[in-house]
Amino acid sequence: MTTEAKPSPRERLLSAAATLTYREGVGIGVEALCRAAGVSKRSMYQLFESKDELLAASLEQRTARYVAALLPATEDDRPPRERILHVFRQMEAQSGTPEFHGCPYLAAQIELKDRNHPASRVARQVKQNLTGFFRAEAERGGANAPDLLARQLSLFFDGAAARAGIGADTLTGLVEPTVTTLLDAAGMR
Amino acid sequence: MTTEAKPSPRERLLSAAATLTYREGVGIGVEALCRAAGVSKRSMYQLFESKDELLAASLEQRTARYVAALLPATEDDRPPRERILHVFRQMEAQSGTPEFHGCPYLAAQIELKDRNHPASRVARQVKQNLTGFFRAEAERGGANAPDLLARQLSLFFDGAAARAGIGADTLTGLVEPTVTTLLDAAGMR
Repeated sequence: MTTEAKPSPRERLLSAAATLTYREGVGIGVEALCRAAGVSKRSMYQLFESKDELLAASLEQRTARYVAALLPATEDDRPPRERILHVFRQMEAQSGTPEFHGCPYLAAQIELKDRNHPASRVARQVKQNLTGFFRAEAERGGANAPDLLARQLSLFFDGAAARAGIGADTLTGLVEPTVTTLLDAAGMR
Repeated sequence: MTTEAKPSPRERLLSAAATLTYREGVGIGVEALCRAAGVSKRSMYQLFESKDELLAASLEQRTARYVAALLPATEDDRPPRERILHVFRQMEAQSGTPEFHGCPYLAAQIELKDRNHPASRVARQVKQNLTGFFRAEAERGGANAPDLLARQLSLFFDGAAARAGIGADTLTGLVEPTVTTLLDAAGMR
């Protein structure tokens, strides 16, 4: 007996769905997902009502890790503008790795088109939370228009993630000066 | 006899591919494309080597219209910063229509994942041309770092198109102040 539990079929399906849809797109077939997870289609449909539900659950499940890799810790007491810059520095660092293909939550929404798809709903919520983080830091930092700054930063984040994900830009020397310009223009401390 | 020629099977396929992939994604099946175009699969494969080639040709074909709807005319002699703002105003206006789902050339690259896909190559070139337009205007307008400004504007354009396309932002009151901030910071005339 080992002390480490073998991942369950449910866990293997969630992991395969997250990895394969991120790398190959949401059009990936149920067969390919089950093969990668080592789970029969019959078992998959016992665990998830549909492929759509599996996609939604896989996006949901990776959220905690995604947020932890991007946002500063709650106890990180640097000034708001530094906490905002932290997010962009993290994204820039992630974008330099070969497995980076952009923001999974943006890509899922672009690919699915359908705003009512269960996975689109999950993805939208995750992105709204990121805008909410920017909004809260903007307010704390005394930005003269916190809503506007939060929208600007969200747009810039998605543009940067998208362009780095398709290889259109490396982001080197781009992210920090741009975010600084936006923070300065907003009068952020 | 009418004076207006009926669109050829080739034209109908290009048009169906452009419309359907934009609305539903690049995963759209050959059968659906042929049905929408009113062309047999056999005829399609006589006209195009593969679905991939049809996608690439459909993106290529709509380029002229896309550019005309976005960029100022060559003879438009407003100052460079106005010519740049024109692009963003056009995009913002387009994004308010129900048929807007973001930039087709960005979406195609995000969805296809494969940078060597013939349609990815077409899309990349179109986006590089837009960055080239920003770069040339930045230079003409005396921007202190034309390369940086062109990259910033490209990122902001793609972020705006992506977020408006998925309904995450309306762009109202966002695009013009942000672009103006970036142009001012670059010292653009």
